[in-house]
This record gives sequence, C-alpha cells and structure tokens, in this order.
Amino acid sequence: MRLPLAFERYRSEIDAELRSVLAGRESPLYKMIRYHLGWVDEHGHSVQGSAGKCLRPTLLLLACEAVGGTWHKALPAATAVELVHNFSLIHDDIQDDDRERRHRPTVWSIWGKPQAINAGDSMHTLADVALLRLGDQGVAPEKQHRARRILSEACLRLVEGQYYDISYENRLDIAVDDYLEMIEMKTEALIACSLELGALLGSDDEAVIRGLFACGRGLGLAFQIRDDFLGIWGNQQKTGKPSGSDIRRKKKSLPIVYAMEKARGKSKRELLNIYRKDVIEVQDVDAVQGILDALKARSYTQEAAHNYLNRTLEEIRGLPLVPSAALELEELACFLVERDF
Amino acid sequence: MRLPLAFERYRSEIDAELRSVLAGRESPLYKMIRYHLGWVDEHGHSVQGSAGKCLRPTLLLLACEAVGGTWHKALPAATAVELVHNFSLIHDDIQDDDRERRHRPTVWSIWGKPQAINAGDSMHTLADVALLRLGDQGVAPEKQHRARRILSEACLRLVEGQYYDISYENRLDIAVDDYLEMIEMKTEALIACSLELGALLGSDDEAVIRGLFACGRGLGLAFQIRDDFLGIWGNQQKTGKPSGSDIRRKKKSLPIVYAMEKARGKSKRELLNIYRKDVIEVQDVDAVQGILDALKARSYTQEAAHNYLNRTLEEIRGLPLVPSAALELEELACFLVERDF
Repeated sequence: MRLPLAFERYRSEIDAELRSVLAGRESPLYKMIRYHLGWVDEHGHSVQGSAGKCLRPTLLLLACEAVGGTWHKALPAATAVELVHNFSLIHDDIQDDDRERRHRPTVWSIWGKPQAINAGDSMHTLADVALLRLGDQGVAPEKQHRARRILSEACLRLVEGQYYDISYENRLDIAVDDYLEMIEMKTEALIACSLELGALLGSDDEAVIRGLFACGRGLGLAFQIRDDFLGIWGNQQKTGKPSGSDIRRKKKSLPIVYAMEKARGKSKRELLNIYRKDVIEVQDVDAVQGILDALKARSYTQEAAHNYLNRTLEEIRGLPLVPSAALELEELACFLVERDF
Repeated sequence: MRLPLAFERYRSEIDAELRSVLAGRESPLYKMIRYHLGWVDEHGHSVQGSAGKCLRPTLLLLACEAVGGTWHKALPAATAVELVHNFSLIHDDIQDDDRERRHRPTVWSIWGKPQAINAGDSMHTLADVALLRLGDQGVAPEKQHRARRILSEACLRLVEGQYYDISYENRLDIAVDDYLEMIEMKTEALIACSLELGALLGSDDEAVIRGLFACGRGLGLAFQIRDDFLGIWGNQQKTGKPSGSDIRRKKKSLPIVYAMEKARGKSKRELLNIYRKDVIEVQDVDAVQGILDALKARSYTQEAAHNYLNRTLEEIRGLPLVPSAALELEELACFLVERDF
C-alpha cells in the first residue's frame, strides 16, 4: 500500500521549511529533535530516514490548494502543525513508556525521560517560531492572529485529549461516547485545525473555511479509529508499533470500549479481570483478542471508520473546491481508513 | 523580610488577567494548573494561597512603567511570561523528582508524572493564548509579532538551559564559566525577556529597550546565584525547598562548581567521591557543606550575586527612566539578592 501522491508533492518543501526553522540551532538539545524527525541517528549523523507521513501538513497544504489558494504561503502553518504533533508524540512516548516509534527507539529511551521532556518542550516552542514566518509570506496580521488562535485552541484540546486518554487507562466504565469525546480532542482537533488553517490561508470564504473544518472533524475520527484498528490487528513490521501494545497498555481504544459494552457473562468477567490487573501478560493479550473476535469487534471498528469517512466524503463533495484537489482530498481520506501503516 | 511594594501594586491585576485566561476552561486538566498556581487545593476547592512571587510579570510591568508606558497594556505579556515560567516549573519538578514546591506537594506528586506533563504542556499553550490578548490592548501588529519572537526565543533558551542543567548532574568537570553559560539560558533569558517586553510595550526608544534587556541580564544572573545560595544555606521554612536538596540532587550550582574548581588534595578527593555516588546520603550532604565552608564558598557566592547586582544598578542609573519606577527597580534588584525566600 502506497501513500497517495499528495504526500509526495509537498514533502520536500515541508522538509525544507522544517529544516529552516531548526537552522542554526546547534545545541545538543536539538539533536534529539532532529533524531525524532528522522534526520539523524542518535549520534547526530545524517540518515535517510522516515520522518513519519507528515499527514497534518499535507492535509493543510491540500486544503489550501482545494480552496484555490497558493500552498507555499501556508508552509509556515504546515510546519507548525507538524511540530505540535511531533512534540506531543515525544511526550506521549514518555507518558506511555513506549520504547519504539517509527521502527526506531523513542527519544526518551535513548536520552532519558527528563531530557525527552525538554526535547518536547523546545519542539512545542518551535511551532510558535514556525508560525511567526507567516508574516514573511505576506499573510495579513488579522489572519496570522486567527491562525495562532486556531492552533493554540487545537493544541489545548489535543493535550486535554491526552489527559482523558491516560485517565481512562485505569477505568473500566468507559463507554463508546466517552471514547469518541476523547478522540475528538486527542486526534480530531489537530487534524480539523490543519484543514481549517489551510482553508483560512487560501481563502476568505467563511463558508468554505467552516466546511473544511467539518471535513477535518470526520476525517480525524476516521483516522484515529483506523489507528485503533492497527493498534490491535496491525502488522508490527508495517506499523512500527509492537502488536497488541494497545491491549498491554490498557488503552481504551474503540475495539476494547466496544467489547466492554457488548460482552456478557463469562467474557465480560474475563475482560474485566484482565483489565483490573496491574500488568497485562502475553496470554491476557491473546485472551482479549479472542473475546474481540467473538464479538466481531474487528468489523465493528472498521465500519465505524467507514461511517466517518463517508461523512467526510459527503462534506468534501458539497463544497465548491478546485476539482483536482478535491479528488486528492477524497483519495487521501480513503487511504487513511484503509492504510496498514 | 518583605516583598517590595512593586509586587503588591500589580498583584491583583496579574492574578485577574491569569484567571481570565483560564476562565471557562473547566476540564480536570485545568484543575492541575489552578492547583499549581495556588488557587485551589488538590480537590479543586478554592484556597487562599501562595502562587509564588510573580517576579517576572512584576519586572515586566515595572519596566513598562519605568519607560513611561501604561502598564495595563502590558498585562497580557506579563501573564504570558508567568505562564511560561510556571509550565517550566511543573516540568522541572518532574525532571528533578521534587516532591515539594512553595510549601505544597508538586503537581506530579499528586497526579503522577504523565498527567503533570500534560499540565505543563497546556500551561505552555496558555502562554500563547495569553499573549494573543495584546491585540485587545491595542498593541500594533508589528509589536505583537516582535513580542512573540522575544518570548519564543527566551523560552527556547530556558529549555536549553534546563537541558544543560540536567546534563551537568552527572559530570564532574563543570567550570564556573560553564555554569554561567547554563544559567544565562535557564534563568537569565526569561528575566531579561520580561524587562525587554515591558520596555518594548511601553516605549519605541530602541536604546532604552536594549538597556532594560541588559539590566535583566545582570539581574537574572544575580537572582539565580542567590537561588543557588538559598538552595544550600537557605531556611527550609522560608524557601519551601528541603534544605541541602541541591546537594542531594547533584545540581552543579555555583557554590559546588566553585568548590570543585578550588578544592585541592583530600577535600577534592572527598568531593569527587561523593559526587560519583549514585545516591548522595545525609552524611555526604554534611561533608559537602563542611568543604564549602572551608573554601569560603558562601561568601564567594554572595559576592558573585552582588557583582551582578551592581552591574544591574549601574545599568538602571544610566538609563533615562521615570525616576520613581527606576528607584523601585533598584529596590527590587537589591531585594532579589538579599531575599531569604
């Protein structure tokens, strides 16, 4: 399965803009950031690496094109959302004790948690620095101001989502609605913000800006639900995440929350007993997977992702967008719920 | 020893501005922030508390007055620097494993480290939200832009300083010059930024803006050196920090770095042996204090603080400031190197 071409089109310029935000910042602190972004190995030597998909900046630039804007003008916002996303990943890995991401050791597992907190904090600040460059692109001050507000509020929602995600780990009473509320914050907020920012920087049409924001909402949910799917049924070779890891970490991902709601009798008791344990063992992971299979949680999860996808596709088709870009947006949306990585 | 009156003059408005940045944000995530700011107890009940001295916003507003500006206009920047400072404290306590701050349990010691990371991250974002309000005060877009750049760069330096501070813990070869370079980032950057922002928001005179930035540099160093002094010889009842804690945490504070440079023979060997240990015991703390006494590290440290204070006082006296505010700035500077809390 390959990335849609939209990812390719912007990739080198997103990368160049990111590198120029980091340019001249040579303290060892920034080595952690360059490492996380896939530019260097842990010793600081350049590598040809995977820096992630750059989904959010790609969505942002595509939205800008789709509303008839010049995507280059939006590059500072694209890098800002990518930096916000990545700072949250660095901190997320610390919070979840995850030792691997994108097939490589996580920042904290190399430099320790205290320094990884610093890496995330400076990356968070670099997002502001990146956004400052909108001025150099000739974006009017009022739009810059609005872009800052949109990004800050999305970032607050993202962190709030992280808060709920962690606080759900030790709870057994999470319903599907609680779960949806949590991912609206944790994942949807920054994805919807990316589409909104792209539209804002490409157009003055408030209806179309609102419309792309709405597309982003459905897309964010569909994306996260596919992520949950891969967190249980994904192929570790492709996802770069240890398989079954969401079960071991007691993440209240959609398949689990669904199973907790649906299970009855012996299955329900077994599920609760496993999730009451301090540490979930390998055989527990197998048992949980057995219960999920019996409850058809796999098809339920994928259907849920498709429902949000369909909602997004309808939104896209209802908006007055540049046709070629609109098609790419649809292609990208479909990719996100079918991807295996 | 009491706080200079300048702290009193701005206090209620700084507090009101901070509260209005938080207004309407009611998720449990924000309870951690309100707790850290001293507004509520861990259950979320209002308390009459100590929210710290608000040194940085006070300096910022005083600088604004000193250059003839209207300090109310600068309140959004004052709250932004206070939020940056406090987000860094929440993360610092996690990094240093500190269980107590301002006579209360630290955020992580109540809610755990993963959630405390979130508390810091959202507070960091709230600093951006606070700064957005400069627009409502009628500050011109170019000045807002410059204020954002100044604050972001100070924040990056602060985090870089944290990086060095932590990386020095396990090194025995830190010289006084390395130490000074580290505190220029960790502490001086945000204090100098506060004075610079205050001047920027109160005046268009570039020379006076530069001058107040320079005052802040000396003041930041003097302040941190006094902090180092209190970290070893302070009274726990007054500082709210366990006494000798800087020694136990192997912080390369000025007295220690000085002693490592000056000690010879048996003292040097003893010092190195203690700092090579994984865990520093109570009797080690006593031994280190004995060595510091023998080397007169106490008077050396206080003299160093006074040297930077004198530099700052000269700077202040050389600038065309509003006389009453300039005097208050001098009073505040003197307080910072004499304070016992």
